[in-house]
Parts: sequence; structure tokens; C-alpha cells
Amino acid sequence: MEYITIASVPTELTANQFSLVYNAFSLCIAAMFAAALFFFNAKSQVGRKYQVAVIISGVVVSIAGYHYFRIFNSWEAAYALQGSTYLATEELFNDAYRYVDWLLTVPLLLIEAVAVLALSKEVARPLLIKLATAAVLMIGTGYVGEVADSITTRAIWGAVSTLPFLYILFILWTELSQAVERQDRRVKTLLNGMRFLLLFSWGVYPIAYLLPELGIAGATATVGVQVGYTIADLLAKPVFGLLVFSIARVKTQIDEAQVADQRPVTDTNGNRAEDLVGSTR
Amino acid sequence: MEYITIASVPTELTANQFSLVYNAFSLCIAAMFAAALFFFNAKSQVGRKYQVAVIISGVVVSIAGYHYFRIFNSWEAAYALQGSTYLATEELFNDAYRYVDWLLTVPLLLIEAVAVLALSKEVARPLLIKLATAAVLMIGTGYVGEVADSITTRAIWGAVSTLPFLYILFILWTELSQAVERQDRRVKTLLNGMRFLLLFSWGVYPIAYLLPELGIAGATATVGVQVGYTIADLLAKPVFGLLVFSIARVKTQIDEAQVADQRPVTDTNGNRAEDLVGSTR
Repeated sequence: MEYITIASVPTELTANQFSLVYNAFSLCIAAMFAAALFFFNAKSQVGRKYQVAVIISGVVVSIAGYHYFRIFNSWEAAYALQGSTYLATEELFNDAYRYVDWLLTVPLLLIEAVAVLALSKEVARPLLIKLATAAVLMIGTGYVGEVADSITTRAIWGAVSTLPFLYILFILWTELSQAVERQDRRVKTLLNGMRFLLLFSWGVYPIAYLLPELGIAGATATVGVQVGYTIADLLAKPVFGLLVFSIARVKTQIDEAQVADQRPVTDTNGNRAEDLVGSTR
Repeated sequence: MEYITIASVPTELTANQFSLVYNAFSLCIAAMFAAALFFFNAKSQVGRKYQVAVIISGVVVSIAGYHYFRIFNSWEAAYALQGSTYLATEELFNDAYRYVDWLLTVPLLLIEAVAVLALSKEVARPLLIKLATAAVLMIGTGYVGEVADSITTRAIWGAVSTLPFLYILFILWTELSQAVERQDRRVKTLLNGMRFLLLFSWGVYPIAYLLPELGIAGATATVGVQVGYTIADLLAKPVFGLLVFSIARVKTQIDEAQVADQRPVTDTNGNRAEDLVGSTR
């Protein structure tokens, strides 16, 4: 049994099929880097203790932007227009970029989600170790399936990969459920949104992965898998990051209001207020 | 009926026609990234509650800069100089970049316009949902027309696309009219400028779209459409962003002056002043 590290793509695509994937990749590059610019510039809008979550959002979308740049170039090189159809060239389309991307970004996304909850270190650390280990197992086994030659091998490794995937969702879901109860009403709504976005966006990955198993083969499967992963990445990274940013901003407002109530004549601007409190204690 | 996703361009252009479009695209790349550098660096010149509007201005022109870079490269690859004329190559000019760009930037421009008004969340949210839905409908139906093979199909989808377009302008116009009345005199002048810039710059898009319908065909139509869209993008993004920045700056000065009136011996620097008011109420 030989594993090839490069995904097999159909030898022929219509102009519409090729362009749909091409334009989806280009949109994704633009969206990822735009989100990065937003997060890095908007981090000062949230209190200091939430800024790391926003910075990590920026890092995640930057990594994804880089990988979509590579994926776009690989897609462009893998096909050439002949008459009115696109035929596969000598160059192979490299799907490994996605798995390299997930290997870096999934643990960071988990850190981001935990960071914005602002849990204590004693709770956060074991949680992150469990989640990161499961993430690496999920991506590693998923990749073996993705590059497998036979549909059966793909299904088996896909099933193996689903176990750590479900474990991550279970941990995050229960942890978020607990966190939700402790929060202010506005934060509660946003955290609930985050729970459902996690479930929904992460749910797209196995569906895209499953397409070839469902008998949707050839060009349609490839277009479905590529566009599906792209949509999932847009939801799981920039949209998720915006939700984290919103949670951080609402929490900052709540923190500032509390400081203002306690200390009437003080500068309540973000971190500074916090620092003031600290320095006068 | 088959839709091709790549705009058909004339097979022959004079050197002047090719260069006019080429140089317009290059100018646009420079202007977009220059504006991005300005907005990201100048955001600290406005009070904290207006900074998100300025950051979004920076994000919008960055996305547009990326797309003009792609459009420029696509234009360059689509023609080759043969003797004294430019002949179409095998490479197709990809006009979809514009629609991908608008799909991302138009909702952001609407958010930007609403953000600088600093409306309450209860007013802003339903307004943005209406505007964003209309924007997606407008761009989607416009794209179908843009890539249509027949001039009739183009006209039909263009007309369909005009309905959400007019709806957006109507909503923004009435909302801005209401906002204008509530504002200080200096802000009033700027908001009025914003209303007219919106109407004028957005008005260029349907004119550029209409050129092929008006019997202006072939090379002249292509040059007109490309240069027209470029001018419209320059007005609707960097120039609009500068107006938003000016509004934010004047509003910041007014907020600071109010704080200074109430508390003669205080630091009136930007956000802090605003926060001080909050904390002493």
C-alpha cells in the first residue's frame, strides 16, 4: 500500500468548474488577509486581558491566508485551458497545504476559544493539553485518509479521525455550556453563537471529506470538496474570530462599567483603568 | 443557455486603449494601498468609538488593492503587443475579481457608513441586516448579467440588480437625512457630502455596466467599462473613507469640547475624555 502525498484531481474540468474553485480561493485569500488587518488593528478596542485572543485570531487568519495563496497557485498550475475546457497539466495539485494549515491553526483556534473565556490557568491548561492532543490526532489520521488511493482506506481513516473530532466538540461544548452560565446576558448570547458556529463550521469539514464516499465522484466531488473546505475555513477562522472579538469587546465594556461603579473619579479607558486599580492597591 | 464565468474582451486593442486601462489599474493599486497605510496609521487621530469605522476603511481599500493587483495581472496576461496593436492571448481576462471584491467590500462599506453615525445597537443592527442582504442580491444578480453572452440577458439581470441597488440608496439616503438633522453644523456639512458622494460614486457603476447596452461595443465599451469601474471604486472606497475619517475627526473634536466644558481641568486627549464623562455621570 503506497500513500501519495498529493491529492488526485480529475483530468478535466469545465471552465465554470475551474473558475468557481479559482475565484473561491482568491476570495478566501482576500478575506483572510483582510481579517488579519482588522484583528491586528482592532486589538486595542478590547481590554488587555482579552487582547491575546484577538491577536491569535489575527495570526490564525494570516497562516490561512498564506496557505490559500499556495493552494491558489497550485490550483492554477494544475490546469491549463485547452479550447473551452481545463485539462490537468504535469503539475499535481497539492492538497497537503490544507493539512499543514490545520496542524498549525486548529490548536491556535482552540487556544483562542479558551483565551476569550478568561478561565483560570488551573482550568485552562489541562483543557488545552487535551484539546491540542486530540487536534493533532484528528488532523494526522484525516490526512492519511485524504491521500489514500482507495475509497475504503479513506473511509476507515476518516472514521478514526472522527473520534478525536467528536471528543474536541464534546469538550468545547460542555466547557462552553459551563462558561455560558457564569456570564452576563449579552456575553451569554454571543457565547451561545460561538457554540453553534463551532458545531456548524466544524461540521462542514467531515461533509466535504465525505463527498467522495457518497458516490459524488470526479469533477463534481473535487469542486465540492474544495469549495466546501473553503467555506468551512471562512466560518471557522475569520467569522469565528469576529465572534471572539465581539465577546472580548462586550466583556471589556462590562469590566469598564464595573470599574466605573467602584471608583467614580478614575480613568476607565481599557487596560489603563485596570492598571490604575492595580497600582493604587 | 450557458454562463461563462470569464468576461469576453475584444480580440484587438490599440496601444492607447490597452495602456489607458493598464495605467488606470496601476494608479488604482497605488491609491488603494496608500489609503490603507493612511487609515491604519491615522486611526488613533479619532476617538475610540469611531476607530472601528476608520479600521474598516483601511480593510476595504486593502481588499480592493489586492483585487486590482489581480485584475492588473490578468489584464497584462490577456494581451500581447503585435506590431503596433495588442492582440488577445490564450489567457482570459478574469472580471470575476471585481464581483468577488464587491461581495466583500460593499457590506463592509455599509458597516463603515453606519459605524461612523454611531447609532444605537437597536437601530444599527436591523439597518445593517437589510443593507447587507440587498448588497448580496445586487452583486449576485449583477454578476450573472455581467458574464452573460447576450446583451438582452445582460440587460434583464442588470435591471433585476438595480432594484436592491435603489433600495440600498433609498435606505442610506433616508437614514442619513435623519442623522444629518441631529448633528452639529460641521458634521452636517460632511454628512451631506457623504450622501452626495454615495449617490454620485455608486451611480457610476450602473453607467459603466450600461455601456455595452448603449450600443458602445467592442474595444471602446471594454475600455469604458474598466476605466469607469476603476473611477467608481476610487470614489466609493478611498475618497469615501477619507470623508468617514473627517466625520470621525470632527465628531471627536466636538466630544472633546463637551468634556472640556464640563470639566475645565482635565485631560481632553481622545478616548480618555469620553470615558471620563461616562465615569462621572
